[in-house]
Parts: sequence; structure tokens; C-alpha cells
Amino acid sequence: MTARYDIAALKSRLDGIRTEENPALVKQKSRDFFWYSPTLKRQLDHVVGDIVVSPTSEEEVLRVLAAAHALGIPVTPRGTGTGNYGQAMPLSGGVVLDLSGFNKVKRIEAGRYVAEPGAILSKIDAETRAHSNQEIRLHPSTYHTASVGGFVAGGSGGVGSIKWGGLRDWGNIIRLRVATMEASPRILELQGEDLHKVAHAYGTNGIITEVEMPLGPAYAWVDVIMGFDTLRGATEFANALGEQDGLALKNLAVVAAPAPHDYFLRHRKFIPRNSHCVLVMVADFALDSLLAFAQRFRGSQLLMRSDTLTPEEAKGLPPSYELAWNHTTLRALRVDPSITYLQVLYPFPNQVELVDAIHARFGDEVTCHLEFVRFDGKVTCFGLPMVRFTSEERLEEIMAIHEEMGAPIFNPHRYTLEEGGMKQTDEVQLAFKREADPQGLLNPGKMIAWEDPDYDYRSGRTFLFKALGEAGAGS
Amino acid sequence: MTARYDIAALKSRLDGIRTEENPALVKQKSRDFFWYSPTLKRQLDHVVGDIVVSPTSEEEVLRVLAAAHALGIPVTPRGTGTGNYGQAMPLSGGVVLDLSGFNKVKRIEAGRYVAEPGAILSKIDAETRAHSNQEIRLHPSTYHTASVGGFVAGGSGGVGSIKWGGLRDWGNIIRLRVATMEASPRILELQGEDLHKVAHAYGTNGIITEVEMPLGPAYAWVDVIMGFDTLRGATEFANALGEQDGLALKNLAVVAAPAPHDYFLRHRKFIPRNSHCVLVMVADFALDSLLAFAQRFRGSQLLMRSDTLTPEEAKGLPPSYELAWNHTTLRALRVDPSITYLQVLYPFPNQVELVDAIHARFGDEVTCHLEFVRFDGKVTCFGLPMVRFTSEERLEEIMAIHEEMGAPIFNPHRYTLEEGGMKQTDEVQLAFKREADPQGLLNPGKMIAWEDPDYDYRSGRTFLFKALGEAGAGS
Repeated sequence: MTARYDIAALKSRLDGIRTEENPALVKQKSRDFFWYSPTLKRQLDHVVGDIVVSPTSEEEVLRVLAAAHALGIPVTPRGTGTGNYGQAMPLSGGVVLDLSGFNKVKRIEAGRYVAEPGAILSKIDAETRAHSNQEIRLHPSTYHTASVGGFVAGGSGGVGSIKWGGLRDWGNIIRLRVATMEASPRILELQGEDLHKVAHAYGTNGIITEVEMPLGPAYAWVDVIMGFDTLRGATEFANALGEQDGLALKNLAVVAAPAPHDYFLRHRKFIPRNSHCVLVMVADFALDSLLAFAQRFRGSQLLMRSDTLTPEEAKGLPPSYELAWNHTTLRALRVDPSITYLQVLYPFPNQVELVDAIHARFGDEVTCHLEFVRFDGKVTCFGLPMVRFTSEERLEEIMAIHEEMGAPIFNPHRYTLEEGGMKQTDEVQLAFKREADPQGLLNPGKMIAWEDPDYDYRSGRTFLFKALGEAGAGS
Repeated sequence: MTARYDIAALKSRLDGIRTEENPALVKQKSRDFFWYSPTLKRQLDHVVGDIVVSPTSEEEVLRVLAAAHALGIPVTPRGTGTGNYGQAMPLSGGVVLDLSGFNKVKRIEAGRYVAEPGAILSKIDAETRAHSNQEIRLHPSTYHTASVGGFVAGGSGGVGSIKWGGLRDWGNIIRLRVATMEASPRILELQGEDLHKVAHAYGTNGIITEVEMPLGPAYAWVDVIMGFDTLRGATEFANALGEQDGLALKNLAVVAAPAPHDYFLRHRKFIPRNSHCVLVMVADFALDSLLAFAQRFRGSQLLMRSDTLTPEEAKGLPPSYELAWNHTTLRALRVDPSITYLQVLYPFPNQVELVDAIHARFGDEVTCHLEFVRFDGKVTCFGLPMVRFTSEERLEEIMAIHEEMGAPIFNPHRYTLEEGGMKQTDEVQLAFKREADPQGLLNPGKMIAWEDPDYDYRSGRTFLFKALGEAGAGS
């Protein structure tokens, strides 16, 4: 397999830049958390690059891109590999461009910061908090491990989205610097409408070398868990709470019983098995208001508030955002490896009813997990329901039923941008790839529109990247 | 008129507390900006207290209340008198309780501050900005003159409401300390549900002696004016802009042509007479995103951005919040004294169509002025349209037509809480008045439910406070 590319020639051009060819380490750096999906696990488990190259500056990135371009070697950029969709997996082998060492926070001002792509989100926060009591607006549950470049290249939102919406929303990314994949790679500065060219493009059409992102106020966040007898009660409360414009919230999730008790092992002592839980991150100064508001909801029960725990009670408890988003799935998987998940949008204004109807239909095959967000100016929820996996066919069927019932799916069992997203060609990203990566060397196989312009998204068939099949055969 | 109360006995009990009986000064401190309404001007122009008492501490407030209670003298609290509804006007004479000197900021922390009621909003901001680059979340357009206690007692929202909703929303007031009007006045601490007892009660059922309020991040705000050829174009843009969850906005208003050109005299040079204007306060770091977003709207034209003005261009320009809320009305009144206004809610989700339909109906008798806000979790707009006043009857008719068409009116031509608000008894405020002001000495005449429990809100008749009639006869 490695014979496909002249790795020795590449190395000779990268003097002074760290590289790694140890097969175990290369394999490790060729993977992300794709294995949450049994489908992706089957398809991608063998994927491996040929060499890991770890530039630590923009100048080094440009050298790597020029060298790889000259030799026709694919380049797949990678932050820390915390994604779930094979975003950072080198389907055609070649260079794994490890940006985790290119990670400095360069500038902090009121409302914004500038950083290199490999900067870890929690590390950025540590610096912005110390600088001026500010924090990043949005982060995935992998706050302590994910890089900002990887998040911008493949994330959609997460913790903070109940306040600020998603990464796709105007204002949540201010500016990106991007290196092109050409004989003489260029650096482009993108702002405004141009940001859509490379945000959430998995690095298929440019390598992010700098981000400028907004900051919000850093408060003392308190984790609160409220329990309800019914899922409907929990959902109605969470939806109403999300609509309280004056309450400073940072995350707002619902997890149906018995999952919180069964899967949140360190929190189990607080959570009766029949409690449907609402997990809230709220600013300390808004906590009393939140609890007073909750009194209006019959059957609401305060199960935990992190600010009044004794040191013994608090010991070893993960923060509530590590019970939310895909950490919910992770905790379920650790207890029950047969679990997988979906990504669902319950569109405003019928989200509460739709959640009820869908979960009544599936019973305990699909356990409800909601993340409330602002979406196009309204409060609604995404779902990351936990699915008892039986077969890929049944998984497809469950997704089809969701869509029939009015809840669009962002399929987390696909490695392409289009199938995991809008199921249509993103003309802006495609046009930019023609300009910035004319030879198609960046993260091959992830953009269907590039690989197979005639692909029919309504065919119902999964896109298969040819080179992946070859790599599979060769492994 | 002053013979009604034993003011000499009162003064003898207030040793060490500043009082004022000079008729011209008492008259000045007995007024607010009620004269924006021709109806209130006719009804209230003669209103005057007997003495102004100016305590500067909670202990002094308690002494004044005890003394007035013992002597049966009404007490009407007042911040700086910037309201528009006679909120601070002593309809039964007696004591004008001037709290403007009781005005210290006592504590500032991350996300909150504690202040005395007379603290001026802009002065609080100066301190919170210097302390930790934070600012108050909500303020009226009278930012430089209004006190926080008066705002809490009679305000509803304003600048900041596009982000945080209104004062009535959970989390926008954290805690209030209130003095009761009893033989031995008590101090009560109110939080959570209890805040509704005294917030927006005009001081009819307790005197606020301390506020604890949330803070937001203080950014460098830029004033932007966008012009559109049609009101519909301006309204659609503003509504869409308000729904951009990731854009840090502080105010978002629409003023229909030709009002901006005709009334915003210092901005006239930027504004063609046929431009329907969208006035935006946006954080400096979000300005590029806003301008890129605006490109999506056909016919949008950037008329002014305050960050690129030359010193000469900027000279004498008021900040854009002093073109908004009731400062819009004020500027109209200065040019055309026949102008008055309404307060309208255009309920989500039909606000854009409703604005169009209503303004098509009235033509240039009613000039459109919208303030976009978050309301129950959604973005919609209030209206403070400018009305060419002809008669009180026609004004009533215009309001009735608004309500028939689906746009509720908060009548700014009434001095009672109920008529200016929900047109029904507020049982919580009434019950608290029974407890905290059993003799009915606090700000008499403003709470219909207290004065006339049998009043029929559906009668269509204006409530007339008896003592006001007497005072009117006696003046």
C-alpha cells in the first residue's frame, strides 16, 4: 500500500519538520472516533496513512503542501482526531497532516481571539479567562481534547448553542486563514460569506492555518440535574427554559430514563432509575431564578446542583457537558457496546410533540437524548438518540421513519460531507475546491460532489469512495 | 392643597434628611415626561407634591416611611423622573421621595452587581466597565439620566432587549430589597417568583432600597444605519438580523421614512429622505459579519457606520440608542409638537406582515417605528409608532384598530399600571400592597385594583383617580 506514494522523496523535502512512520503511531493518528458507528467501523477500520507530518507553523504547513503537491501525495489534515465521522481519516493513505503542535493562542481582545488551528479548546479558554474573564462561545463535549481547527472544519455546534446557535451562524466564526494545495500554495484570508467555503468542509478544500473567533463572558457555571416522571414533562420544561431569554444558560439537554441512571455511573447516586433528566449548565447568578422558574413545572425535582456538593460528593464527577452531546453516547457505549446513535433535528415549532410521537413509536429501541439549541433565531432541539443496534438495515429504517415523521437526519453513519449533512452538493465548497485544490489531493473521498459529480443523493444508496475499497483490499 | 397634610410635623421627624419645599423645585420634582402624551398632559399637568424628601440611605428611607405613615401622608418614590406615564407623579400630593441621592454601586462580581436605587444607569456601566469590562444588560434610551430603581419600578426593557428580552423575564432582575410602608417599616428581600410583586409596580407597594442585577459583556459597540427603499424591506432585514443568534447585537430598530431624515437632525446628512432606516448597535467584532449578511438583502444600503466616521463627521452625533425607543418620539416631538405615539406589540410569528398591514391602513397619520426584541424566546418587535395627533377620540380609535388587527396596545396615555399594561388586576401586586402598604399611602392612584376593585377593564372608559380630580379642582 505504501508503495503508492514516494514517501522517501517527500521526507527529503521536509527537513526540520517532524514526521512519524512507526506503523502503530501512524495507525493511531489515522483514526478518529468513527467507531461510535457500527457502519463506519466496518467501512473504515482498516484506514491508515503512510506518514504523519507535524508542522508547527504556517510556513511549515506551506512547505508540506508544496512537497506533497509536487509528488501527488494526498494530505488529510487532523487536529486531535476527536470527530466521529472519519473526518480526519486518510481514505487514500498518504500524509496525515497532524496540526496538534501548531497550537498557539496568538491574540485576545474584547469579544474575540486569534489562534492557530491545533489549539485545544479548553486551553484557549484557560488563556482567555485569565486574560479578561472571557471564554469561547461554542465547544463540543470533547472540550478538553478537541482542537479549534478541527472543530471549525467539522463541528456544527455543541455546548453554548442554546445561547449562540451553531458554527454555521453568522458571527460564530469571524475570520479564517487558509492554505491552498497548489504548486505554490497560497494563503487566503476569508471573512463574511467566504467563510462558508471552508467551514465544515473537513479540510477538503484548504488547510486552516489561523482562526479568529468570538468570545463570550466567562461565568461560574453550575451543573444542575432536574428529574421528571415523564419524558414529556422533561421536554416541556427544557423547551420553556430554553426560551427564557434572560437566563444565562450554557447547555440544556434531556436524557430519557433509564439512561441517566444506567449510563452516568458517577452521577448514578443522584438519579433514580425512572427519572427523565434535564441537564443544565447555568451561571451561578442565574441559578436561583432557574430554580424558581422550575417550581412552575409540576413534578420537577432537583436531583443535583454542583455548587452545594460536599467535596466527597463532588469527587470524580465529570462536568455536565461530559454527559451531553456525544459524551452521552460514549457513556452509553461503555456500558452497552450494542448502542449506537443518530443525529436528528426536531424542527421548530413542533419539537415537543414530535419528540413525543417519535419516541412513542420506537419504545426502548431508541432512547431519547435531546440537546436544545437556538436555530434560526428560535429555540428547538437536536436529538442524539441512543439506538439499540441490530443491523445496518434496521438502522436505515429507523432513520427513514424519522424523516417520514418530519425529523430530518444528519446521518452519523456516513463519512462524506454530503451524506452527513444536507444531502446535496454544496456548490460553494465545490467551487472553492476547484480553486484551492485543483488536483484533489486534500482529504480525498469526503466530498462526493468532487469524486462523483453524477451521484444521485435520492438513490438511497451509500456513496462508496473507490480508493477506500482499494485500500481495504490492500490492507 | 398643602393643608391636607401636616408637613411641619413630618419635617420635625426628619432631622438630618434633606427636604425641599420651594414651590418651583417641588413642582420640578413632581413631574416626569408624561407630556409626551396629550391626554396625560391634560390630566396631570397640575400635579404637585407638598415636599420633596431626599434620603441617601436605607436607614433614612425607613425613617421617612415611618414618619409619613404615622402622619398619614402619601409617599411617591422617584428616581430621576425620566418615565413617560406619570409613574413618579404624586397624584395625591404629599411626599415626593427623591431617591436620586441614594445612588451608590455597592458590589460588582462576574455577571452581577448590587446598587442603590438612585444609581444612574450610565454611571453603573462606567463602574462595571472599569471593574471588569462588564455592562448592564438592559437600559432605556434615557441611559444617561435614568436611575436603576426607577427602571425596575416602571421600565419594561429597551436597549439590550434584542439579546436578553425584557425586565419581566426570569434572570433580568436577580434580587430586590424593599421597604414596606407600615408603622414600623420592614425590609424584605425578594427573589425568584417574589420579584413580580414589586417589579413594574411604580413603587405602589414598597420602596426599592437595593437592586441586584445581571451584567453582560461590555463590547465596543458600533452604530450602523442601513437604508431601504421600502418599509417591508427594512422590516424583513431587521427581523432576519434579529434572528442571527451568533451576532452580538445590542439594539435593533426600524424607523420609516421620512422620519429619520426629518427628525434625526444631526444624522440628517447621512440619510436620504426616502430611506426607511434600520438602526443597529453591533459589537465591533461582529460588524463585518453583519455587513456580509446585509449583502443578501436586495436594496440594502449602508448609510452610516460610526467606527469609520471622521472626527468632524462624528462631532455632536448622539449614540444610536438616543435615536431609538422613546428618544425617537422625543426627536419627532422637537420638530413637530403635534406628534404623539403608541406602544404596540406585533406578536410572533406574523410581525412582519402585521406591521405592513397596519401601516398600509393608516398611511402617514401613523409613522412606523419598531424595536426588535426577544419575547418569550422568539424574536419579534414592539412598535412605538409616531402618531399625528388630532384628538383623544381619534387616538383611541387608532388604538382600537390596532387591537382589532391583532396588535395589542400598551397604552402610554394612561397613568395606571393596569391600563398601561395587561388591562387586568395583577393579583400578586395587589396582595403585596395589602401586606406592605395596608393604608394605601404609597404612590396613590396608580393601581386601579387597589383604588376601585370593581373597575371594569372592558368598559372602554378611562379610570379616573378621585384624588386627582380633587387636586385638579384645587390647583
